Amino acid sequence: MSELFLRTLRDDPADAEVPSHKLLIRAGYVRPVGPGLYSWLPLGLRVLRKIENVVREEMTGIGGQEILFPALLPRAPYEATNRWTEYGDNLFRLQDRRRNDYLLGPTHEELFTLTVKGEYSSYKDFPLLLFQIQTKYRDEARPRAGILRGREFVMKDSYSFDVDDDGLRAAYAKHRDAYQRIFDRLGVRYVIVSAVSGAMGGSASEEFLAESDIGEDTFVRCLESGYAANVEAVTTAVPDPLPIEGQPEAKVYDTPGTPTIATLVDWANATLDRTVTAADTLKNVMLKTRLPGGDWELLGIGVPGDREVDDKRLEAALEPAEYALLDDADFARHPFLAKGYIGPKALLANGVRYLVDPRVVDGTAWITGADEPGKHVVGLVAGRDFVADGTIEAAQVRDGDPSPDGAGPLVSARGIEIGHIFQLGRKYTDAFEVDVLGENGKPVRLTMGSYGIGVSRLAAVIAEQQHDELGLRWPASVAPFDVHVVIANKDAAARSGAEELAATLDRDGFEVLLDDRTASPGVKFKDAELLGVPWVVVVGRGWADGVVELRNRFTGDKREIPVDGAAAEIATNLR
Amino acid sequence: MSELFLRTLRDDPADAEVPSHKLLIRAGYVRPVGPGLYSWLPLGLRVLRKIENVVREEMTGIGGQEILFPALLPRAPYEATNRWTEYGDNLFRLQDRRRNDYLLGPTHEELFTLTVKGEYSSYKDFPLLLFQIQTKYRDEARPRAGILRGREFVMKDSYSFDVDDDGLRAAYAKHRDAYQRIFDRLGVRYVIVSAVSGAMGGSASEEFLAESDIGEDTFVRCLESGYAANVEAVTTAVPDPLPIEGQPEAKVYDTPGTPTIATLVDWANATLDRTVTAADTLKNVMLKTRLPGGDWELLGIGVPGDREVDDKRLEAALEPAEYALLDDADFARHPFLAKGYIGPKALLANGVRYLVDPRVVDGTAWITGADEPGKHVVGLVAGRDFVADGTIEAAQVRDGDPSPDGAGPLVSARGIEIGHIFQLGRKYTDAFEVDVLGENGKPVRLTMGSYGIGVSRLAAVIAEQQHDELGLRWPASVAPFDVHVVIANKDAAARSGAEELAATLDRDGFEVLLDDRTASPGVKFKDAELLGVPWVVVVGRGWADGVVELRNRFTGDKREIPVDGAAAEIATNLR
Repeated sequence: MSELFLRTLRDDPADAEVPSHKLLIRAGYVRPVGPGLYSWLPLGLRVLRKIENVVREEMTGIGGQEILFPALLPRAPYEATNRWTEYGDNLFRLQDRRRNDYLLGPTHEELFTLTVKGEYSSYKDFPLLLFQIQTKYRDEARPRAGILRGREFVMKDSYSFDVDDDGLRAAYAKHRDAYQRIFDRLGVRYVIVSAVSGAMGGSASEEFLAESDIGEDTFVRCLESGYAANVEAVTTAVPDPLPIEGQPEAKVYDTPGTPTIATLVDWANATLDRTVTAADTLKNVMLKTRLPGGDWELLGIGVPGDREVDDKRLEAALEPAEYALLDDADFARHPFLAKGYIGPKALLANGVRYLVDPRVVDGTAWITGADEPGKHVVGLVAGRDFVADGTIEAAQVRDGDPSPDGAGPLVSARGIEIGHIFQLGRKYTDAFEVDVLGENGKPVRLTMGSYGIGVSRLAAVIAEQQHDELGLRWPASVAPFDVHVVIANKDAAARSGAEELAATLDRDGFEVLLDDRTASPGVKFKDAELLGVPWVVVVGRGWADGVVELRNRFTGDKREIPVDGAAAEIATNLR
Repeated sequence: MSELFLRTLRDDPADAEVPSHKLLIRAGYVRPVGPGLYSWLPLGLRVLRKIENVVREEMTGIGGQEILFPALLPRAPYEATNRWTEYGDNLFRLQDRRRNDYLLGPTHEELFTLTVKGEYSSYKDFPLLLFQIQTKYRDEARPRAGILRGREFVMKDSYSFDVDDDGLRAAYAKHRDAYQRIFDRLGVRYVIVSAVSGAMGGSASEEFLAESDIGEDTFVRCLESGYAANVEAVTTAVPDPLPIEGQPEAKVYDTPGTPTIATLVDWANATLDRTVTAADTLKNVMLKTRLPGGDWELLGIGVPGDREVDDKRLEAALEPAEYALLDDADFARHPFLAKGYIGPKALLANGVRYLVDPRVVDGTAWITGADEPGKHVVGLVAGRDFVADGTIEAAQVRDGDPSPDGAGPLVSARGIEIGHIFQLGRKYTDAFEVDVLGENGKPVRLTMGSYGIGVSRLAAVIAEQQHDELGLRWPASVAPFDVHVVIANKDAAARSGAEELAATLDRDGFEVLLDDRTASPGVKFKDAELLGVPWVVVVGRGWADGVVELRNRFTGDKREIPVDGAAAEIATNLR
């Protein structure tokens, strides 16, 4: 440490908000260079490389072959898939001296696809699994939390290429297993969440979220069954249909001044002979979606009045279609839309596509708009008085909602996305027409999977999950050193004994950080706690009595071990 | 190999000119993505990583500490050193979504300097040696020869920080030694050449050039003494001065129509009573250099008429000053300049700075311009008739010129720059005012060395130097695999024997490439030669007789070794 390029800081950096960011700066692991741009100092780089190596080992273990693309990429392939445009402001674009367009790669689907197309031409060449561990660039609108969301970052991205769906599913399953091994080895607490709803293709897309209160992703899970999903991907537990027979006829009421759910519920409780809640009302939200030709089409969405339409879920449900709320001009163009009093009937009668929340099963009766200003209808029964065009997963998800597997209530939590596995299918092989000769002599279009891990982000995630009030704590798999030997005794014999102990451990194959500085023991202990090497050996006062102290940075346990055979004893703990 | 992501090509790529480029493409090591942009396929990436590791080991061996900066960098630090502008078109510049300026780092002096400034403040923290192995960007005007001169490439750059010149010299010497070890381990044939002339500071800057006919750098060396220098850095062997006394007086002649050296020499041989060559004439080249304030100042350069002024040497000699040849307007402004007939006298009489080639020693007599159209002077003696303001190393260097150390003639050769070590001094610490507390309590400005190795370029350099007509040949230190086992026998026992042999070698810690494809032995042998793994084991016809063949890719030697104990025997050769 007397030579290590390191200066620890006593105070938190002014602009740091989350613990991992504060500690990684204070402990001298990283330094800011610009918004979302960080340099890795020696300790940080050691952690980063160890994470990379764990990822590399597991990717190689499932047959992945490592390659490396440039980060600076020509525009053409990204133009072909429209991502040059789609990425919007998130893409770093530049021109070279000849005014040709380039980009800094945010992800490399295009290049992998084109490379495989360039090399391989027969079904015999597959399955194929390629990966890279590479620097990526995204011009985030709000880079935050240090290396947690940077603009230059290290990612492992891999892609599977198969001639059939079974192959894709196998590659996906292998990745899923490998990712679990990776995150387990890294000591990360994580949840695998469905990233698309069951309706859209089952487990074809899952995210690995590290549990963290500072995470930007909200997910829900059922503690009873282990079901977990992104909010976008949660499927609603569908109630059984109710009998239609015997239900009273729908009746239209004058409900002046009740354009909102709250005013409507007040009116109902004052007028009807029963207790009414917002959940008894059916709110119809009007949107327009853009058709392939560019025209807009009306879309009505009916959700129970106690729930808002969730933007993220709506977007995921309609993806890739563009949509917008109706403006005044739209309402003016469609006079059958009685704003604040819209009901299913006018929509269906006028040919408007109408989708409802899955809770709106046959036999449920609703208080909803009667399609005239100041009028509502009570007892409008689904399956009798109206039949929607289908269902849509757009209503907000709430803690306590039943899990779709029926096992219990859902609870929400926050997480940081650390991995994503995705059965991409033929989007890119279609774009680049990647066919190979099939076993039957006919061309086969390849199908792809896309799999990512945020490698540099993981350093922050581990710091975030494992730190305590004293500083960082690194699992052995990624710790910058295996053991931290602190010389806390000015006696020359103690000092040389500590140096010898460090040298012995080094010879035994351990990475040793030796604090040989002239600083006080107190300063050294504080730094050891801050730096977070998992095992600390203190050569201190006990030296005279023939003992050194072995500290476990995770448990805080301290115990004295005899100097004789100390290296072997320490090694036993480290292995 | 049945699973390796590899397709070898029979034909040279159309756009490849140099052997290394052709072979690295044909052997499937790299693929072009755009001009000067390459992807590294599995074999190429293995070579690249091995080169990186050799570099890393030796840099760590001399006390270097590895860190990693972003490649995407804010403009400000490069503005402070004026390199934002100086780099011209070679710099990739871009803007982020907020229209702030960024660049892709071509080299990182600014960042290293600022980082050290940010962390350290006392002489006790030094010496310090930091390095990174990182992706760099330069928008080359003519990217060429594949990865030899790419626009995205991997470099090792290191920087030493010291409080005094002795420290800098020690750091420089350590780097020089480490670089020699690195290039020796990589099996590169190289020359260390002076990169600045002795007059400018001795060995303060040296380049490591790999000997190669396709190199872009010309250097000269003296085979007798080992002296070697860049053309820019060659110092002229200065002849002894001649006695001035007894030399005839200078005499002006009418020499109509002799504005060129050739016409002047013809006139002299026709008129004077002796044989005259161009070397007897003194040619005066007129330039202007820009002063700090922006004004231009005249500069006359006198060189023997048998030599041109070498642009690169002139630029190096005048650096960092900007200069230009005189145009007609300049001549018109200075009527004492008799174009084609300029001599030292008018220049000196009119206060024009006048520098001469070092061969123009006192006592040498010259035929040169007499400062009037159609007139020359004969017998103008340096030190008697004119005294120049100094000397300049700007005349061209020719094969056969004497080495400055007097040991013999210089011969020129071509090389590829693979390393550069440079005593940078205080250029950057001055720019960023990096002072630390000195031992005497006063601030000390740090002094820096800058040291680079072209890591990805080295893959091409090794390919270029080591290939033969059959393909690549990799030294063991960087070979993608240690040994290449070729199954050239369809017999099931031979096949499983080969697999077992490969597995044994793998267990013994060797990296084994097993050619288990169904291709013919001929195809496999050709690929083995192309790929260039240094040792090839052929499990072929001899299997029935209990032997396999061990081939040395470098020497072409082949010998049979018994199957029993084959792994051990092979291992002996590999170690």
